Amino acid sequence: MADLARLSLNTATVRERWDLPACIEGCARHGIGWIGPWRDGLAAYGIARAARHIRDAGLTVSGLCRGGWWTSVPRAQAIDDNRRAIDEAATLGARCLVIVNGGLLPDSRDLAAARARCLEGLAAVLPHARAAGVALALEPLHPMTCADRSVLSTTAQALDWCDALGDGVGVALDVYHIWWDPEVLAQIARARGRILGFHVCDWLQETRDLVTDRGMMGDGVIDIAGLRTAVDAAGYDGPIEVEIFSTRDWWTRDPDEVLAVMKARFERCV
Amino acid sequence: MADLARLSLNTATVRERWDLPACIEGCARHGIGWIGPWRDGLAAYGIARAARHIRDAGLTVSGLCRGGWWTSVPRAQAIDDNRRAIDEAATLGARCLVIVNGGLLPDSRDLAAARARCLEGLAAVLPHARAAGVALALEPLHPMTCADRSVLSTTAQALDWCDALGDGVGVALDVYHIWWDPEVLAQIARARGRILGFHVCDWLQETRDLVTDRGMMGDGVIDIAGLRTAVDAAGYDGPIEVEIFSTRDWWTRDPDEVLAVMKARFERCV
Repeated sequence: MADLARLSLNTATVRERWDLPACIEGCARHGIGWIGPWRDGLAAYGIARAARHIRDAGLTVSGLCRGGWWTSVPRAQAIDDNRRAIDEAATLGARCLVIVNGGLLPDSRDLAAARARCLEGLAAVLPHARAAGVALALEPLHPMTCADRSVLSTTAQALDWCDALGDGVGVALDVYHIWWDPEVLAQIARARGRILGFHVCDWLQETRDLVTDRGMMGDGVIDIAGLRTAVDAAGYDGPIEVEIFSTRDWWTRDPDEVLAVMKARFERCV
Repeated sequence: MADLARLSLNTATVRERWDLPACIEGCARHGIGWIGPWRDGLAAYGIARAARHIRDAGLTVSGLCRGGWWTSVPRAQAIDDNRRAIDEAATLGARCLVIVNGGLLPDSRDLAAARARCLEGLAAVLPHARAAGVALALEPLHPMTCADRSVLSTTAQALDWCDALGDGVGVALDVYHIWWDPEVLAQIARARGRILGFHVCDWLQETRDLVTDRGMMGDGVIDIAGLRTAVDAAGYDGPIEVEIFSTRDWWTRDPDEVLAVMKARFERCV
């Protein structure tokens, strides 16, 4: 079982009821030492104020969600926005900036062009990230999100992009996105030294929505402990974020209950 | 553009309104030379009667849907059922029996065990298939169906299984399931000589359901013509089935309208 000291709250898990300061206080109250904030919450609260509050509460930022989205806005705008995201991650002392790359280009069926645009954007901001000391964590997203969220779909592909980009880039692995992959264990081993984040939740047998129907660890079919063991064996000993989008269940509950269940399930299933 | 003579109606496309004899008559009326029936429709109509009707209407069976489902019933039952499916495919003179392998074993998170069960089942019925002259077409299904429908998720994995099983096994490739795959073009090339079926429909940007929200060719984001060109370049010149599960749109329409649109879109987008 994973050490509870590695547990991080990705704030999306309680986003419908808690703003960022409430998440910070909630983590402190529940003895959770890590937090994974989102940029919209940061902007609403103010970066400097958020950084101070997080530090004063004794928390550390596992990863900032998120940069990327190279394909849905003009090239220069995406690059500017990602530079700002890098600066925010530096201000927070985040272990990484999580990158969700984006889907197809507007009115396009050209996957190769979308992937090229992503790589071009990453290469453009990488010098800024290196200078700021912020690692970029490429997150492969489930293939069902390929059209509208991520043309980066597998761990192998993410590592190929890391190979192409060089130092300062690694991967964020979320069990929800990678569990089905016949190559997952081999690719986790290949990721040694490049795993910047590890996210958990669960895949529900009766999944009703492609984005917002994730399960709490233990309620689904993913062998989470098996994947965590593989990630550990590849040398990762950092924080483990719980990130659950759940319109029908967890987003409707009292966040204090969600955090209590999350801790118990982390100890039992991760 | 693909030759309209290759068009096949997978009967699932109109399954809410037409039974099998209506599908046969519909194909004949619309000048469609191929049909891909489902076993439930066959059973309702009677195999011998269906085979005669299909032949008398001048149609040929592209593929029979479907065998497989190794993981959801006891081993012996799955093997018996697949032997019957093989016999039915032989009676129909089908070009192949399409195999959808099944999801995880009941109350299990063990993907490796589920995959082993599938391979064991395939190996068990393969001598019967070879003797009957029925080719088994392994269909990789989209990773979003891994838990409950197919632990066979990619073209690479399907070809690995073909390598392991030997003669008499190939692949059925459906653009809906494989389009997102960064390896898809390389794996289609690798599939040369083993492509037993090719299915088309489209991925809708705003997909609302994991199973029954497929689009008509041209209404989504898949580069269908690009994939068809790759499949042709790999030596496939057989029928191209249109298989659309669509609760919100195509299943609600008059099937004669569906077939007319399908023909027009086939000529424009495939």
